[in-house]
Amino acid sequence: MLFQKSLVSIEDVSTEDIEEILKISDSMVKLLEAHKNPHSMDSYVMATLFFEPSTRTRLSFESAMHRLGGSVLSVSDVSSSSVAKGETLADTIRMAEAYSDIIVIRHPLEGAARLATQFTAKPIINAGDGSGQHPTQTLLDLFTIWKEFHSLDGLNVSLVGDLKYGRTVHSLIMALSRYDVNINLVSPPSLRIPDHFLARIPKSKKVRITESLDDVIDSSDVLYVTRIQKERFADKNEYLGLIGSYSIDEVIAGKMKKSAIIMHPLPRVDEIKPEVDFTGNARYFRQASYGVPVRMALISLMMGVS
Amino acid sequence: MLFQKSLVSIEDVSTEDIEEILKISDSMVKLLEAHKNPHSMDSYVMATLFFEPSTRTRLSFESAMHRLGGSVLSVSDVSSSSVAKGETLADTIRMAEAYSDIIVIRHPLEGAARLATQFTAKPIINAGDGSGQHPTQTLLDLFTIWKEFHSLDGLNVSLVGDLKYGRTVHSLIMALSRYDVNINLVSPPSLRIPDHFLARIPKSKKVRITESLDDVIDSSDVLYVTRIQKERFADKNEYLGLIGSYSIDEVIAGKMKKSAIIMHPLPRVDEIKPEVDFTGNARYFRQASYGVPVRMALISLMMGVS
Amino acid sequence: MLFQKSLVSIEDVSTEDIEEILKISDSMVKLLEAHKNPHSMDSYVMATLFFEPSTRTRLSFESAMHRLGGSVLSVSDVSSSSVAKGETLADTIRMAEAYSDIIVIRHPLEGAARLATQFTAKPIINAGDGSGQHPTQTLLDLFTIWKEFHSLDGLNVSLVGDLKYGRTVHSLIMALSRYDVNINLVSPPSLRIPDHFLARIPKSKKVRITESLDDVIDSSDVLYVTRIQKERFADKNEYLGLIGSYSIDEVIAGKMKKSAIIMHPLPRVDEIKPEVDFTGNARYFRQASYGVPVRMALISLMMGVS
Repeated sequence: MLFQKSLVSIEDVSTEDIEEILKISDSMVKLLEAHKNPHSMDSYVMATLFFEPSTRTRLSFESAMHRLGGSVLSVSDVSSSSVAKGETLADTIRMAEAYSDIIVIRHPLEGAARLATQFTAKPIINAGDGSGQHPTQTLLDLFTIWKEFHSLDGLNVSLVGDLKYGRTVHSLIMALSRYDVNINLVSPPSLRIPDHFLARIPKSKKVRITESLDDVIDSSDVLYVTRIQKERFADKNEYLGLIGSYSIDEVIAGKMKKSAIIMHPLPRVDEIKPEVDFTGNARYFRQASYGVPVRMALISLMMGVS
Repeated sequence: MLFQKSLVSIEDVSTEDIEEILKISDSMVKLLEAHKNPHSMDSYVMATLFFEPSTRTRLSFESAMHRLGGSVLSVSDVSSSSVAKGETLADTIRMAEAYSDIIVIRHPLEGAARLATQFTAKPIINAGDGSGQHPTQTLLDLFTIWKEFHSLDGLNVSLVGDLKYGRTVHSLIMALSRYDVNINLVSPPSLRIPDHFLARIPKSKKVRITESLDDVIDSSDVLYVTRIQKERFADKNEYLGLIGSYSIDEVIAGKMKKSAIIMHPLPRVDEIKPEVDFTGNARYFRQASYGVPVRMALISLMMGVS
Repeated sequence: MLFQKSLVSIEDVSTEDIEEILKISDSMVKLLEAHKNPHSMDSYVMATLFFEPSTRTRLSFESAMHRLGGSVLSVSDVSSSSVAKGETLADTIRMAEAYSDIIVIRHPLEGAARLATQFTAKPIINAGDGSGQHPTQTLLDLFTIWKEFHSLDGLNVSLVGDLKYGRTVHSLIMALSRYDVNINLVSPPSLRIPDHFLARIPKSKKVRITESLDDVIDSSDVLYVTRIQKERFADKNEYLGLIGSYSIDEVIAGKMKKSAIIMHPLPRVDEIKPEVDFTGNARYFRQASYGVPVRMALISLMMGVS
């Protein structure tokens, strides 16, 4: 029941809602393959209010709306625009409300999207708020796994890289915890998953914490790689010393099961070598492309039009 | 008869045209409420050329065009784009003419919109030219009052704040002067309405000039509040001394007639307190939302399609 | 056979393809005159990825797509956006591929568009890559001449200005060389056409190289004027000394045949005086407007929908 609801955190979404989103996303994939425009959003306008630029996320939302026949009001960098010059977030949101039917907001501050929902009756989609949430990324991650394995159960999922700061990974872990999965958390000690976060994973899940990719590489069904940012390290030598051991190349990919997939929220820099793009395990580009059908499904459900 | 005409100043528009715009705007409100896209602008393209950013105004125009089924070419900041690098306004306008059917122009210099009309046979809408005109703001102001009181006659309208520099207020006064209204002009002495402007109000109107909001607060039907900009004052103490007396709070709003409305062109900063948003008198958000149906009406009339 | 092909250089296009583009462009002119939207691109999305701003070119492509009923994902300045922050061109192109059906790319570096075609199976249109190619400009130049003279054969075409660096002129010469034309190359010695380029013009063409506009002004059917950029000269006096002799005014235009036309890729600065705009020979604004029907034709052919 997402009709006219906002989506701020993946934890707002029931497991039944996720099931529905996955199924409708799948029908959207078919629609896209058939190159059909359902025109279901013909009389709808979406506003994309980006308080910090994120071209990839913005274009994915805008493509989804266009593929449904809808229109878009695009503000690619609110903070450099005239809006918000001394204006409160409340008033900027009310402006978007006056001109559109659904508001996508990206903001550098955690909690901004939740706050925004208090100023409007129109549905808001959080497209990332600082170190907070980015629920549509999690939905497209789930969809990618589901499309590949026809289920979210019975899988061995390894999350690799920065597990301390990465909001993408945090949300994905919480979402996967609803299903029957084994979770492997692979990171350097300094970027280990925070304890308070670990405590929220249900005891019934099999969780393995390791520093070594080798411990999990051959048993993983999903290898979800994230970026390790140099800025996180006070000691640059520490960074340089470990960056290599979490970088996926052809040799590492070669150790994976044939059916296993490599995912990444993109953009990637060095953590997946370009040579991996041509292996049978690479799924990060397809994962990115699923952003469109998943957001089409979500918009349709929120607008109550399908 | 707005067909294929430009709209540079509210004074270009006959009283009959205003009546027509109000009526069609009203039918556009109904269309929006029914969430119907008439597709009347299906084969039309609007160019929004903003020589200075004004996201609020730009999005309002773009929303209006999308709600009619039309397309938009959007240049949110012409001056930072490649166009106009040494190019004359004339050639930039001719470019827009070649690619679109109707051109919305915002420019920091007074007179720019009028000048623009000389270089193209296509209709131009002035979306604000420096201290000059912003006629669609005036039209939506009139529509807001008309929607509320079912008439523009017999009203007591108080304009509050910066009456010296505020182009919004100047245009609104001239437009209201066509109707049977009493006009109260409330401002500090240093921001009094200019004499040459006062001289243009017909003698038949009852005009009251005062520094005190208290003089008019209980008799006003419309309280139109504008921003007092700190930059206008050489003496910052003078600014600080008077800013408070023109700031509307719940107590002041409480002195108003129950049927009276508070308007503001937005964005507001301190001149209306957030607590006022929840009073029955606040109409500034609805006023802003009327920007869409009023611009829909205007575009339809100018393109001759309805 | 442009279906699903990329367009990087005018030399990629066969003479038969050019004929087809000219004919379909002509039917697009009629469509535009009748103000009909064929909706042929209803379920198609175009991404315009501009790694350097070029508002004129961007809007021309976007207008073309809108006139066909299609949608646009617009990135007016990729380099200042989040995309490409350490991301490779390959990954940025793959992002656009995931969200759209056809990708228009403008890049400051020569060869970027060709490189881009290697990372995607979707058609790419080069909208200018540094000193490289800008094939749609050439197509609209050809269309302008063809519309005027109903043929590309039997004409006397004079190219004036910077023939050394001007990519527009280079592409046009190569394209015109396929037809029965006389080519006059008018430039100061320091901006003469490069020898290696001259060598590529078929021996069968009558080519005249001169410094003097007077040598060709009365015999030309087409006078194609380009900008001489001050930056090209180490010696500013040399620039100032010659800039005047290649600047078209009413007197020079008056020496032309009545049927002759003046063209320019725009924007122009001083090389064509505004007074020339009102002569019967000026065609540069119409030329610019043909950017829309020519790009409509091209998009339709590449998408295989008409």
